[in-house]
Parts: sequence; structure tokens; C-alpha cells
Amino acid sequence: MSTGTLRKNELIYEGKAKKVFATEHPDLIIQEFKDDATAFNAQKKGQIRNKGVINNELSAHLFEYLETFGVRTHFVEKISEREMICKKLDIIRIEVVMRNVAAGSLVKRFGMREGTELPIPVAELYYKNDALGDPLMNDEHAVVLNLATLEEVTLLKQTAWKINAILREYFLSKGLKLVDFKLEFGRHDGLILVGDEISPDTCRLWDLETNKKLDKDRFRFDLGDVEEAYLEVRNRLLGSPANA
Amino acid sequence: MSTGTLRKNELIYEGKAKKVFATEHPDLIIQEFKDDATAFNAQKKGQIRNKGVINNELSAHLFEYLETFGVRTHFVEKISEREMICKKLDIIRIEVVMRNVAAGSLVKRFGMREGTELPIPVAELYYKNDALGDPLMNDEHAVVLNLATLEEVTLLKQTAWKINAILREYFLSKGLKLVDFKLEFGRHDGLILVGDEISPDTCRLWDLETNKKLDKDRFRFDLGDVEEAYLEVRNRLLGSPANA
Repeated sequence: MSTGTLRKNELIYEGKAKKVFATEHPDLIIQEFKDDATAFNAQKKGQIRNKGVINNELSAHLFEYLETFGVRTHFVEKISEREMICKKLDIIRIEVVMRNVAAGSLVKRFGMREGTELPIPVAELYYKNDALGDPLMNDEHAVVLNLATLEEVTLLKQTAWKINAILREYFLSKGLKLVDFKLEFGRHDGLILVGDEISPDTCRLWDLETNKKLDKDRFRFDLGDVEEAYLEVRNRLLGSPANA
Repeated sequence: MSTGTLRKNELIYEGKAKKVFATEHPDLIIQEFKDDATAFNAQKKGQIRNKGVINNELSAHLFEYLETFGVRTHFVEKISEREMICKKLDIIRIEVVMRNVAAGSLVKRFGMREGTELPIPVAELYYKNDALGDPLMNDEHAVVLNLATLEEVTLLKQTAWKINAILREYFLSKGLKLVDFKLEFGRHDGLILVGDEISPDTCRLWDLETNKKLDKDRFRFDLGDVEEAYLEVRNRLLGSPANA
């Protein structure tokens, strides 16, 4: 079946920033990017104009880029401004965060100074559980919580390290510092694939020269120029819209 | 120098449950066990009659027992009811918690049911930092916080696993379930030694038949029979005082 003919069937899931629809193909879904933004476990809510369009473009681009390095993702094809076709995943309830520079919870939880370059990249695991506030955990917690086997956890972390090495270089070449980012994973046909999205919603990106934040922290902390920041990242990676 | 002649010099450190004194020997300290008890990051305070005497006896006994299995500890000699001589440590600011059964923060943080037997023992690392509330961390956090090298963190965890295997069997032979326990470590003369104490202050111990809590949780949660619980553990391990 050509994916070009796929139509949306029922809504399977509506998240904070995306809707996921079934299609007539049992192994494929359509992921639709919204402009809605939430922060602090959905205590803060708002909209970022055009975010859905930009995050769809950026995620498609970054998933394709990662695939050229042999990273397996759920991405199949971008089919409209706000929609991409993806492989249907059995979601693993673990968020993997990779950090290169101290920000966010490293500052709050451990008292590190924001902006400190880390001597080694740090991989963190979080239990995807809204009711518990997505707590930090370690490899063994993931096992005893029945989220994954120890081998799978190791694979998630190795994949996250690899993606970090690839994307850090890539963003650097675009004048952006990859401070940290979040990955989600799922099982599909016996494989573990990278899922969700990769965008300024899920990455902290700072301008290399000025350290200006060009990501969702502008929304979280009311820093202003939110839409401009998303557009700036988009244009650095994909060229200005006129050339796109 | 015979340790028998050692005298207390100045107080180096006073903690929640112990005082540490310098001695005339630069490599040795005297650790004195108090009856004071605190919980919830010192928000709850009280006293447990005779706790210091019992914890000194139990720690001396358990350190000696572990040494027979090749585990290196700071323990040198028990010199009075409430005092032991120990090697002076350069403390590593990492607490290692080993868990066999869900209790405490596994219940609160991850929503597990108290009493659930874990399919694998879980090792947790906490950053010893009162101001930050001793946050949970992973191996890489310990490195970027400059607390230890990755090799040292691995050694701490391996030692904790070994101690868990030894003590779990031992407590089982005394009709006690080792639910979880906390270890501290320090550097001495190029080696990493187990420090602090091993007692019902630092171990969760449940009666094997009834699951009755025989540890500091009786104090934390006002369960009553606190002193009796400490004495019960002491007598199961060391025999009743008349025979001691």
C-alpha cells in the first residue's frame, strides 16, 4: 500500500502537543502537530503560533538525518504541513534525557550552575507517569517497574548517546548548542524505534555565540520572542522559507 | 600504637546520631553513638532509649562479619558501650541504598506496593546534601557533580551488591527480612572503605513471619515499641543480654 493514499481514521491519542490517528494500515499512524504548548506537568498552558508546522518540519528533517546514520526511528513520511506518517509503536514508558550542559533539573535538583559544560554527557531516565510527575529513575528501577528489560534499557541509553553525538555536531554546524534533549522510544515489529518528535519542544538549544535560548524555555519562563525562536531554529536548519 | 590507649581529642563532626572525635593517632577516629533520632531530613526529632548502645554493638558485629567476607570497612575496635575506633575517612558524598523489597521512596516516588519483592536487588545513589534534600541521582550525575569517578561509582555499587548478598542471607538466618539499607563510603590510604554504621537506623528489617517492622520506621511513623524493636534485632543477632 502506498502511504500517499493513507487517510486518518479514529483519534487514538491526544497529547499535549500532538494528536495521533489510526490509518487503514494497521502498522502506521498519522501524527499531527498542534500549536498547543504546556509546561510544568501541564500546570502552564498556552499556544505558540505555527509551532505545529515548524516542529513537523524539524522532526521530519531530524529523523531523516538520524536514519542516514543508521538510527532507527518511527518516521515514515511527512504528508502535510502538520502531519507525518509514522510506524505504530508500543510505547516504552521511559523518557531518556541526554545532557551536555547544565540546565533545567540539573540546576534545580543538584544545585549546578546553569550553563556549566558537563565533562561527560549525562543520560537520565524518567518514568513516563503524569500522576507521579515523571520521576527520575535509574536502570534497575525501570526493570522492577516492568517498563523494560535491563538489555533494553542499555540499548535505549546507547541509542541516546549515539543520537547525542550526531545531533550535537549537527546543531553546532548551525551555530546552535545542544544543551539537552528528550527521547521517547517504542517497540515495533521486534525492534525498538525512536518515537515522538525532535524539536525545540524537546531540545534545549542555545545560540552558540550569545547563549540566547531558542527553545521551549522561552515559553516556560515567559522570556518573550517564543515564535521567533522556533522560526530561527527552523531557518538555521532548513534555510529561510523562501528557499525551502 | 595500641588502640587501647587512644583518647578522644576534639570533636570533628556531630551528626544526627553520632559524634566523631579525633584521636592522637592521625589515621584513627572515635565514633560515639547517641540515642538521638531524626527523620524526614531532620524535621522530626526525638530520642530512642539505648539506641546508641545497641547500634554500636550491632555495627561492630556486622562490620566484623563483613570483614570475614573480604569487605573492607572503617571499623577497627569497639572500645566502650557507645564508642568504636574507626579509620579516618575522606567521606564520599554518595549514599548507596540497596533494596530487596519495595518500601519507603520506592512506594512514594514510583507508586509501588509496599512489601513487593523486587525481581532484582535495586541499587540507588543519593547525593549527600542536606540543603538539596539528598536527591536521587545516577552514576553520571555522581561524576559530573565531582563526587567520584565512574570507576569508583561502579566499585561502590559492586560492594553494595556484595554486602547485600551477605547480609540478606545472614538476617534471613535470624528470622529477619532485609528490606533495604543504606551504605556510606570513604577514602582511606588509597582504598575505599565502608563507613558510617549498619544498624536498624540504616536498615529496614522486617520479621520474616509477620512482616513486623523492626527498624527506624517505627520511630518515623510513630508505630510504637521503638526501643523494643531495636532490642529485638540486637537479641536475634547477638543473643539475649544475659548471654552476651
